[in-house]
Amino acid sequence: MSESLTALMAACQQRIDHTLDQQLPLVNDSTRLREAMRYGLFSGGKRVRPVLVRAAGLAITGGTLNAQQDIILDRIGAAMEAIHAYSLVHDDLPAMDDDDLRRGKPTCHIAFDEALAILAGDALQTFAFELISNLPELPPAVVVTLIQQLARASGMSGMVLGQAIDLAAVNHRIDLAQLENMHRHKTGALIRASVLMGAIAMGADAKQLTALEQYAAAIGLSFQVHDDILDVIADTATLGKQQGADAALNKPTYVSLLGLTAAQAKAKALHEEALAALSEFATSADYLRQISAYIIERGH
Amino acid sequence: MSESLTALMAACQQRIDHTLDQQLPLVNDSTRLREAMRYGLFSGGKRVRPVLVRAAGLAITGGTLNAQQDIILDRIGAAMEAIHAYSLVHDDLPAMDDDDLRRGKPTCHIAFDEALAILAGDALQTFAFELISNLPELPPAVVVTLIQQLARASGMSGMVLGQAIDLAAVNHRIDLAQLENMHRHKTGALIRASVLMGAIAMGADAKQLTALEQYAAAIGLSFQVHDDILDVIADTATLGKQQGADAALNKPTYVSLLGLTAAQAKAKALHEEALAALSEFATSADYLRQISAYIIERGH
Repeated sequence: MSESLTALMAACQQRIDHTLDQQLPLVNDSTRLREAMRYGLFSGGKRVRPVLVRAAGLAITGGTLNAQQDIILDRIGAAMEAIHAYSLVHDDLPAMDDDDLRRGKPTCHIAFDEALAILAGDALQTFAFELISNLPELPPAVVVTLIQQLARASGMSGMVLGQAIDLAAVNHRIDLAQLENMHRHKTGALIRASVLMGAIAMGADAKQLTALEQYAAAIGLSFQVHDDILDVIADTATLGKQQGADAALNKPTYVSLLGLTAAQAKAKALHEEALAALSEFATSADYLRQISAYIIERGH
Repeated sequence: MSESLTALMAACQQRIDHTLDQQLPLVNDSTRLREAMRYGLFSGGKRVRPVLVRAAGLAITGGTLNAQQDIILDRIGAAMEAIHAYSLVHDDLPAMDDDDLRRGKPTCHIAFDEALAILAGDALQTFAFELISNLPELPPAVVVTLIQQLARASGMSGMVLGQAIDLAAVNHRIDLAQLENMHRHKTGALIRASVLMGAIAMGADAKQLTALEQYAAAIGLSFQVHDDILDVIADTATLGKQQGADAALNKPTYVSLLGLTAAQAKAKALHEEALAALSEFATSADYLRQISAYIIERGH
């Protein structure tokens, strides 16, 4: 990983943790609802989506941010993490993937119980929309656009549809186009929204948004291709989950469909595609370029 | 029920069904996600929340609505139904109330499966925010206010908190204040939001909103008190669920805490409170008055 991206990611993790802690403080509450929500939010993720929000914002502002812009990007990043966390909490449930461990820790329904995990996931989704609707100092029309983006990316035409496609695909033979369609929705939609929302909040124009959409589509897929590669080559300790877990569930992957070598080549080609999409941007988009490189190098 | 309220409710049911069908069309989709969402949305409910949205809107406009206002109130009503439907789909899950029947029909996870019911509930929540964020012809600042109201009412400080309080209360002795706190969140918050959002969208001023808040608090509680009464006195056929189901689950109710007679007196007192809150409103608030009367007369 490049040195500057390492610094950005570290700063971003700290900022997002602070924002989430501030916006979702633990209160004295016998239901443990907020505790379960915070458990889902502070589960040791790399905060990739908030890093994308910030990197996209920086690409638009030309590399600097005032204090107000800093806060806006933090809140958007926190909202993306809330949506991501809710999807993981629900995805891990017994009726879904039935995972007991995530990143080496008990999943939410194991640490609490199933009912509270369902409710915590539900409330995390609401929390995301609450965060965006309370963004300070942005014109209301921009806030509405951000909420439209978030809703489209996370609901029945985005992430949740992707999860439903994933469920329907278990034990079914699917081809490469169907696999890509699943990932474009399941993880790609939220990655795309992170990039676009960071840019929109910083005043991106239509041409910039088109380029960033192409960038986001490419890294969204390379992220998943590389995840599938990692699932085969990394050991359990690095992943924090059972190695080969997807294969064991009979889930189709890029590696099972393409083979390892072709999957690695595909990840590299998608990285090139991401860089090409950014050709009109100056050095202020360097973080976005470095993130694309990082995505296909993780875990080695 | 008064004749005019009967007509309003019938019209509202038709309008909401039409709006939901239009905004969430069934598409050719092997995942059955939208099918499960629609199953939750078209489950034979009385559309009480959309009726409240419309009645509150009419109280503000003075009794008439133009075509644009009609559409806005329909969309807000549809959003309230989407939140309500998602909460029921998740509430019925085996890990929650474990109900196989709702209004005499198989619950969503029985008609489909548990995983799809979780996802359908998730996507219904997103759909609600999507509907509000796409409201036509309202100033963006008003749309943002509506989204803030919806998020506050349905998340960790509203409906979901109420469900968590409810879960924590099973098999525990709770007093009247705790029971009211639970209901104020679990069902009251969404009823309050329905009234306020209908009024806000029609341009209500601060004084009107304060009065409507008092009205909504009163009917929110009387709704629940009367539900508890019905649970004891109605037979299974009328309710579409097991008679005495709450008592069997050891759930505290107004009847178990106050006795039947005092619970009936309380419902009546809350109705008087609701009427008093509307004293400054002219006849354009008559629907709101009739709804309050209807709430404590249902099911007889």
